[in-house]
Amino acid sequence: MSDVKEQIISHRSIRKYRSEPVPDDMLRQVLEAGISASNTGNMQVYSMIVTKDEGLRKKLWEAHFRQNMVMQAPVHITFCADVNRFSKWCRARRAEPAYENLLWFCNAAADATLASQNVTLAAESFGLGVCYLGTAIYNAGRIIDILKLPKGVIPVTALVVGYPDEQPPLTGRLPLEAVVHHETYRDISNDEINRLYAGLEATEQTRQLLEINQKETLAQVFTDNRYTQKDNEAVSASYREVMIRQGFFK
Amino acid sequence: MSDVKEQIISHRSIRKYRSEPVPDDMLRQVLEAGISASNTGNMQVYSMIVTKDEGLRKKLWEAHFRQNMVMQAPVHITFCADVNRFSKWCRARRAEPAYENLLWFCNAAADATLASQNVTLAAESFGLGVCYLGTAIYNAGRIIDILKLPKGVIPVTALVVGYPDEQPPLTGRLPLEAVVHHETYRDISNDEINRLYAGLEATEQTRQLLEINQKETLAQVFTDNRYTQKDNEAVSASYREVMIRQGFFK
Repeated sequence: MSDVKEQIISHRSIRKYRSEPVPDDMLRQVLEAGISASNTGNMQVYSMIVTKDEGLRKKLWEAHFRQNMVMQAPVHITFCADVNRFSKWCRARRAEPAYENLLWFCNAAADATLASQNVTLAAESFGLGVCYLGTAIYNAGRIIDILKLPKGVIPVTALVVGYPDEQPPLTGRLPLEAVVHHETYRDISNDEINRLYAGLEATEQTRQLLEINQKETLAQVFTDNRYTQKDNEAVSASYREVMIRQGFFK
Repeated sequence: MSDVKEQIISHRSIRKYRSEPVPDDMLRQVLEAGISASNTGNMQVYSMIVTKDEGLRKKLWEAHFRQNMVMQAPVHITFCADVNRFSKWCRARRAEPAYENLLWFCNAAADATLASQNVTLAAESFGLGVCYLGTAIYNAGRIIDILKLPKGVIPVTALVVGYPDEQPPLTGRLPLEAVVHHETYRDISNDEINRLYAGLEATEQTRQLLEINQKETLAQVFTDNRYTQKDNEAVSASYREVMIRQGFFK
């Protein structure tokens, strides 16, 4: 096993942070790792907004549903699909850009997401911890206002970064064969569902979740409490509005 | 600098491959790195389709606009947003899933993309090379047919993987300050455009591109030849159709 792979499989999301700041040089190296990721046509249609200011982080904390770690971690990075910079460059070079559409949302979101994973792994290699904030999608409109994102720029994910104040156990994953398909897609049978989800369903963490959420099955914790139809539909509608407002829905 | 960071910044896309196969154990380790990435709520709403069969790879090669590397590289991995498996599990557990919508397209696409970057870095740590295929979006409908993807599953990116048969120079990137914003977004001025793009515009590669494409500016190579308005609009429309067909557009 390579050192890199060893680090990759040791990843855990950190949700408690010490207050000490991330040294500037270290943060710079982490961000340099970010921009080394592959990106669409080397057009680099994404931006990383690094927010350290406490007042701004408090606003972001509110936008991210007041998760404690967002106030604790000294560095907050919002990864945005960004065709604004590229389009401005085009116009300054007698070229007519046409990137405000769904294709370039997908391309630019992929660029931003690849950069975020390089940032994650580089940060971890320096002894820092990170946690992804999927809530960047949930409250994208509010985050756009806080970070003053112009048209052509939209948040796709975010990370908090800092020194860990916990060492949580590794989160269990489904067996590899649940996620990997050979040659073509092979749909899952009921027998396989039972076999592949058995490990996850039998953990102590699952037992606790069922108790806290007062549910019969782990799946119901997701569908009834964590990610409900009502919320899924409301956020889909609000993010669609944000995509339209930022020029990515054509 | 950490070893991990050193490897991350040494990344180059490989477009020429030797024919020798990737050992099964190595490929398994690479895929294990993939599933270690963060994902939405540990729901793991993505799939990796690993295609080695030559006949299928020939069809994928056609779908990816006949790029040589797609036939050369012995392993082809298609990363898909996938709410099908999760939804089937829910239904088998007396839970009603509601994940066929735009929010879960975004969440699941992020899961798939994070996994792809772990796969990339793990593969590189074993001496393999990779190249991303953004064309997974361009011809998603055809790829769905080739890989037999059911409703709830949609390609978001793809990688070819194999032993490199070239060692290309590192691709130049914009300076870090072009991509990183401090505290909030700061829009770019014309002076900054000139300063930040000067390096990229002055390379020998750019000079060659201008000559081959018969263009005045590098930006025109993108807008007029590589990623034209007509193509951007056509692909946006076709991918939207695919999203609707696979159940991700609500």
